[in-house]
Amino acid sequence: MYVLMDIMVSPGGVGVSVSPYVAMCQQIFEDAGLVHTMHGYGTNVEGEWDDVMAAVKRCHETLHDAGAVRITSHIKLGTRNDRDQTMADKVTSVQQKLGG
Amino acid sequence: MYVLMDIMVSPGGVGVSVSPYVAMCQQIFEDAGLVHTMHGYGTNVEGEWDDVMAAVKRCHETLHDAGAVRITSHIKLGTRNDRDQTMADKVTSVQQKLGG
Amino acid sequence: MYVLMDIMVSPGGVGVSVSPYVAMCQQIFEDAGLVHTMHGYGTNVEGEWDDVMAAVKRCHETLHDAGAVRITSHIKLGTRNDRDQTMADKVTSVQQKLGG
Amino acid sequence: MYVLMDIMVSPGGVGVSVSPYVAMCQQIFEDAGLVHTMHGYGTNVEGEWDDVMAAVKRCHETLHDAGAVRITSHIKLGTRNDRDQTMADKVTSVQQKLGG
Repeated sequence: MYVLMDIMVSPGGVGVSVSPYVAMCQQIFEDAGLVHTMHGYGTNVEGEWDDVMAAVKRCHETLHDAGAVRITSHIKLGTRNDRDQTMADKVTSVQQKLGG
Repeated sequence: MYVLMDIMVSPGGVGVSVSPYVAMCQQIFEDAGLVHTMHGYGTNVEGEWDDVMAAVKRCHETLHDAGAVRITSHIKLGTRNDRDQTMADKVTSVQQKLGG
Repeated sequence: MYVLMDIMVSPGGVGVSVSPYVAMCQQIFEDAGLVHTMHGYGTNVEGEWDDVMAAVKRCHETLHDAGAVRITSHIKLGTRNDRDQTMADKVTSVQQKLGG
Repeated sequence: MYVLMDIMVSPGGVGVSVSPYVAMCQQIFEDAGLVHTMHGYGTNVEGEWDDVMAAVKRCHETLHDAGAVRITSHIKLGTRNDRDQTMADKVTSVQQKLGG
């Protein structure tokens, strides 16, 4: 089961600057060989369900080890069985409706 | 790693009435022996990370089998390592601030 | 336009204990006369669109005044024009599928 | 009050293909003169609170007029009063931790 995910990770108890923690998760997605793209409010990640979920778990574990006592992740998970679709396909589909 | 989750499952391609599909997920959380409470915009579920995530996967698989060609889940995942906390603790904590 | 909302407010820069801030928003929904119910990961609120949105804005303003330098809210907004539906109707609808 | 928003709009009762409806909201953000960037799971929008919220309301109204009987939006709202920050600043901040 292929999944398109969006994830925003919020570490708590580490002060206002959270970007070093977000960077740790980016590195985990990269090391896992998952397709991922960061945006202003999270990261799009896609791949096989178990691989993606293992990366999310590793992200929580890694941030706890790095000092975040409390972590909240906001996640969107999309699966479909009618046809294959990548994250890039979704964006292109909307852009075509907008374009000339 | 104990996790407090909130999940809202949205099946697509099944018409406007989605409550039968939401009920299927409720049953999965129940059968998995997880603590769960439904509210107007999703369900609070708590338990060990792997147990909770296995239930989420089964939910997507079951709804696809039931005819939903497209499923989007919106999930909140909270972990902490400073102290134990249940979902009920969180609600009680706010209510105490409001109460006399 | 009637809206069913779910809101989770996360103040940043105030330490790990956020319940006093969550309680302030509860009070704002109460004072605004909106139907609201707290759960483990947020609060269901319903009412006219402009009234609900005014309360959300007041919540951010109030928490900033109380010392939260950074606030993130995660919100679900549902509107429909085919029939009237309350938050309680949604929960009842799922429970009927599960029951007897 | 300046706000950084992320919004994912999900029209219901319109079949599986939702991209024409997403495109309508993109056009509304554009016409409102708001800074906006689409990604695979929504759109980052930033601007003054009232301007951004007016665009969200117009988006729901427009999609209902276009035939969506049920609309659910998933929104993240971030405000801060310690310093100015744009969506682009947030991404740059993480990239700097990853780079070099």
